[in-house]
Amino acid sequence: MEDYLLYHYPLCPLSRKVRFLLNELSVRHGLVEIKPWERNVRAMELNPPEGEIPILLVKRDGNYAVVDSFVIAEYLVSLNATTLLPRSEREKAEVRKIEMWFDKKFYNEASLVILRERVYNSLVYPHLSIDTKELKESEKRLNYHLAYLNTLLNGRKWFAGEKFSLADITAAAQLSSLDYLGEIQWDKYRNVKNWYLVVKSRPSFASILTDVIPGFKPYKYYDKFDF
Amino acid sequence: MEDYLLYHYPLCPLSRKVRFLLNELSVRHGLVEIKPWERNVRAMELNPPEGEIPILLVKRDGNYAVVDSFVIAEYLVSLNATTLLPRSEREKAEVRKIEMWFDKKFYNEASLVILRERVYNSLVYPHLSIDTKELKESEKRLNYHLAYLNTLLNGRKWFAGEKFSLADITAAAQLSSLDYLGEIQWDKYRNVKNWYLVVKSRPSFASILTDVIPGFKPYKYYDKFDF
Repeated sequence: MEDYLLYHYPLCPLSRKVRFLLNELSVRHGLVEIKPWERNVRAMELNPPEGEIPILLVKRDGNYAVVDSFVIAEYLVSLNATTLLPRSEREKAEVRKIEMWFDKKFYNEASLVILRERVYNSLVYPHLSIDTKELKESEKRLNYHLAYLNTLLNGRKWFAGEKFSLADITAAAQLSSLDYLGEIQWDKYRNVKNWYLVVKSRPSFASILTDVIPGFKPYKYYDKFDF
Repeated sequence: MEDYLLYHYPLCPLSRKVRFLLNELSVRHGLVEIKPWERNVRAMELNPPEGEIPILLVKRDGNYAVVDSFVIAEYLVSLNATTLLPRSEREKAEVRKIEMWFDKKFYNEASLVILRERVYNSLVYPHLSIDTKELKESEKRLNYHLAYLNTLLNGRKWFAGEKFSLADITAAAQLSSLDYLGEIQWDKYRNVKNWYLVVKSRPSFASILTDVIPGFKPYKYYDKFDF
């Protein structure tokens, strides 16, 4: 039997981060799909009052929930032998800084609005038209952020430190959700593209590349290695 | 000489969290005031590209910056002997959950808009009138969140676990900024009021109660113990 149950939504970048991490650590887990736009009683019970995902249900010590993608990552990394978070406090802070930047800034300013306008809203209100102004503004911010990320990767293999870390997991989770929708112009950001190609090849990432959202075909390069 | 330099703004709740924590841990530090609405070259250099505060400059190993209030808190707690973060991973996750809820949800939905409309905007554009609709909506969300916090404290002395923790520091930092502006109707939230009274009495919190923002007198009960 698995030790964990993850309440998630396939395209949610914060959920993807935890899925990618669970695979990377080879931690056995089950998945329960939650639609972020619906009120789900079980999710609200596990993470009151609003039931926000991702939620990691730990199936021991009488079952308990760990919530928030950043907090879940800290939890899982502490309980498993891994170099995904470096040893020194200074290097840890570098990894966490990138993680937090994605969790807060990139997510709020780019991913969340794009996902809401292009996917969530259209599933909830099929006849509602997209708020083009909001979407365009988020896409502009997305490109601004991608240009910054491209600079960050100048002469560096990973986003923080010498090794593949939680920072790279967090970044790949966010970018892959937007890539599913064809939002990333890879050729404009060569450093990011080269980095993503390496991350994409990890076996732990494979299940994310097979995600299919009913009604939304993945963009043509989504699961390809020559894009 | 002090070991740290904190780039902060007195009313910024995320900066307050770090100040309160530094005092609580008796860590010697200097303070540099940064106005969040201005582009500050030094802040942008330490936390590129936008120079967001708080920034903790560590004055050793060639000087380096630790950024994001949550990440700074993890950093400081790891380097000091303290019970502000409990030992077990399960209890740690409980404390971090509350912290993150304040850092993301409470800050974005309540504190940030109220501070922007009532303080930041009026300092930058003295003749601009307040966006009353935005402010009213944030105040409504503030009261919704306070009601939830009041429930959380039913029969509990602290926000997470058996001891005063990072969760309480984070909560007090956010609430005190809004209290400076007279935004908290304490008598509607008795559990929160009783909890705040205890936190407010800690010597480590005293310097926060003497803050004065030019042009904004603190609300009449701000530094009082009978409110």
